[in-house]
Amino acid sequence: MSLENIGQKARNASRKLAVTPAKIKNYALEKMGEALVKNAEYILQANSIDLEAGEKKDLSRSLLDRLALDGKRIKGMADGLNIVRGLPDPVGEVISEWKRPNGLKIRKVRVPLGVIGIIYEARPNVTVDSAALCLKAGNAVILRGGSDAIKSNIELTRLIASAAYSAGIPEGAIQLIEDTSRESAEELMRAREYVDVLIPRGGKNLIRTVVQKSTVPVIETGEGNCHAYVEKTADLKMALEIVFNAKVSRPSVCNAIETLLVDEAIAEQFLPLVKSRLDAAHVELRGCAKARRILPEIKPATEEDWGTEYLALILAIKVVSGVDEAIAHINKYGTRHSETIVAKDQEAMKKFGAEVDAAAVYTNASTRFTDGFEFGFGAEIGISTQKLHARGPMGLQELTSYKYVIEGHGQVRI
Amino acid sequence: MSLENIGQKARNASRKLAVTPAKIKNYALEKMGEALVKNAEYILQANSIDLEAGEKKDLSRSLLDRLALDGKRIKGMADGLNIVRGLPDPVGEVISEWKRPNGLKIRKVRVPLGVIGIIYEARPNVTVDSAALCLKAGNAVILRGGSDAIKSNIELTRLIASAAYSAGIPEGAIQLIEDTSRESAEELMRAREYVDVLIPRGGKNLIRTVVQKSTVPVIETGEGNCHAYVEKTADLKMALEIVFNAKVSRPSVCNAIETLLVDEAIAEQFLPLVKSRLDAAHVELRGCAKARRILPEIKPATEEDWGTEYLALILAIKVVSGVDEAIAHINKYGTRHSETIVAKDQEAMKKFGAEVDAAAVYTNASTRFTDGFEFGFGAEIGISTQKLHARGPMGLQELTSYKYVIEGHGQVRI
Repeated sequence: MSLENIGQKARNASRKLAVTPAKIKNYALEKMGEALVKNAEYILQANSIDLEAGEKKDLSRSLLDRLALDGKRIKGMADGLNIVRGLPDPVGEVISEWKRPNGLKIRKVRVPLGVIGIIYEARPNVTVDSAALCLKAGNAVILRGGSDAIKSNIELTRLIASAAYSAGIPEGAIQLIEDTSRESAEELMRAREYVDVLIPRGGKNLIRTVVQKSTVPVIETGEGNCHAYVEKTADLKMALEIVFNAKVSRPSVCNAIETLLVDEAIAEQFLPLVKSRLDAAHVELRGCAKARRILPEIKPATEEDWGTEYLALILAIKVVSGVDEAIAHINKYGTRHSETIVAKDQEAMKKFGAEVDAAAVYTNASTRFTDGFEFGFGAEIGISTQKLHARGPMGLQELTSYKYVIEGHGQVRI
Repeated sequence: MSLENIGQKARNASRKLAVTPAKIKNYALEKMGEALVKNAEYILQANSIDLEAGEKKDLSRSLLDRLALDGKRIKGMADGLNIVRGLPDPVGEVISEWKRPNGLKIRKVRVPLGVIGIIYEARPNVTVDSAALCLKAGNAVILRGGSDAIKSNIELTRLIASAAYSAGIPEGAIQLIEDTSRESAEELMRAREYVDVLIPRGGKNLIRTVVQKSTVPVIETGEGNCHAYVEKTADLKMALEIVFNAKVSRPSVCNAIETLLVDEAIAEQFLPLVKSRLDAAHVELRGCAKARRILPEIKPATEEDWGTEYLALILAIKVVSGVDEAIAHINKYGTRHSETIVAKDQEAMKKFGAEVDAAAVYTNASTRFTDGFEFGFGAEIGISTQKLHARGPMGLQELTSYKYVIEGHGQVRI
């Protein structure tokens, strides 16, 4: 099917979905979950074809692991659908209302975005997860997954789209682009007529390509070069726990820290503690000249290190003169994702919160909390690192827009 | 000065502006207005150079009129600055706050967008107006006006930027790109590192070019193919007033209507009334086959008419079978700007409000009210016709983003 066809079907579906009651959407989410569990063997069959092809293509272990499905992961997807089902429907909420002196009654009402395009890589669970969130927020979705997971994605989409359709969701609400050529992705990036917003979900290169090539508005997600700054008044024991958690608990995710900034007043005391704690977790440390005067055995950090999202057990360390230098460093090298200060001094915390330019700025907590579930949104479609539309964790509300509905009784403008 | 230079200066200024108190911003706006009035002769001098060049280049009368400044227009710009000064500062507002079970206190705080790029054409007042709104919302602005107004823009920017600077606003907060080549505009459209959002202000072609070429996030503004639908239960006298006002009061603006949709049940009665009322204002009518059976003397409307924003005293007329056909026509041909239904039937009004996909949907009022001032925002930088970030009239609030500021006491993620 051509993208024009898919786009037109999605657009038509989106008009109907915008006024589909929560009850039907929830019933569809229930049926979609049942369809996955009931048809697990077909999913696993399709997935095994992808896995075989992936092994022949010599995909890395970690890629194959992201691609692989089993009964537990399928159950996990179905559970995810149920969680989304339980969330409140954002559509129709009156965000604000007021009356003008001329008697016009203006209501700002939450509405779906329309048609959302998702471009992603090898994780088939993104198919189900994105479809569920878009559906609940009243949007039609056009999915464009990577070639490595194509058989799995086709089977998953077939199951959830037909379950949704039989539950009363308009046809075309959930569609997959089966053509995994680069051209098909680029066509989607230019389909302004049919697609209201594109959300890339995946690695840095995917996101950069979409941002560069898309004429459809994009929500940029994911890249996280995050920092922890240990200020001179910090409780060092607390700081140690936060640094350890933010670096080690899951180094491959975007809300893990990549650089530790330490106030020079406490560096001599704190850095040896950090080293012994992180040595135990096999974290490689790379330090600035001042840090290496205290820890001579660690590697030197280069300019490149300050700008790198390692996504691995590596931590750069810089000794700074105080909160101003810490803020300047973060605003220069950070990706505006998540940043934390450990301190007792209220002024330093306030300054850090106000001046650090990031989606989530913490005082005395781990950056690892930047996440839709941890924020209490109940779900997450990604973490925005841009400032337009949505910033930080994006839940259902961030998949909506608004319109003004205005009631008059014959008013004309003079 | 290179764009890199301008961009870096704007970025640096934006960091400081984000924490500049309202008092200083307001003082700067006051000083900027004073500077304009005090130096009117220099502005008029520069403007006369532009006007002379424009006459040599054979610019149209309407373009020359938009370009021309006089004492009254300069006073108008200064008054605009004072209006913005009087508006509440949106920065720092706590949009929402909540506490998580683990004790984390999350606050969603309004912050500036950062650096805003404005690309515009021949109206020099956009220079002052955009700078004021961006400044009040805590943003640095990079202005890129058209070549026809360049001398005026240079003079205006010089005056307001130096007045702002001497009032305590960081250097680089208000800058103009003096190079008016196409290349300089395209460079700005790709300056993701320095510019957080681009707002094109001007005609359809300008906006389309920016949308197509920009890798910086864009807020699309302005194009308005708006409709009035007169439903069969309408008060025809009210309908006549609304149609007249929406078409005739200011035909050159985006919130004027271009097509009238009339329910077939009342077409025979209503269309002759419309014709005699609009004839008096010299409006050219173009009708569908059914409309022409009732008004045989009017021109036929073609497929192209339904998709055209005339911005002139022309009105297309289509007879429809009811609210469903009206909604389908609008959703097919409209630009999602402003739409109105005139009716008494509550169901029809509700359906129209829910199903029409537009920034502003009216019942029993003129579309001409879609405007930041008429909505009570006190100012307007444009009318967004996209769904991402901002929809409809954009005031100060729409020139902001938010960040999450999170307070912990040592929380780590398990």
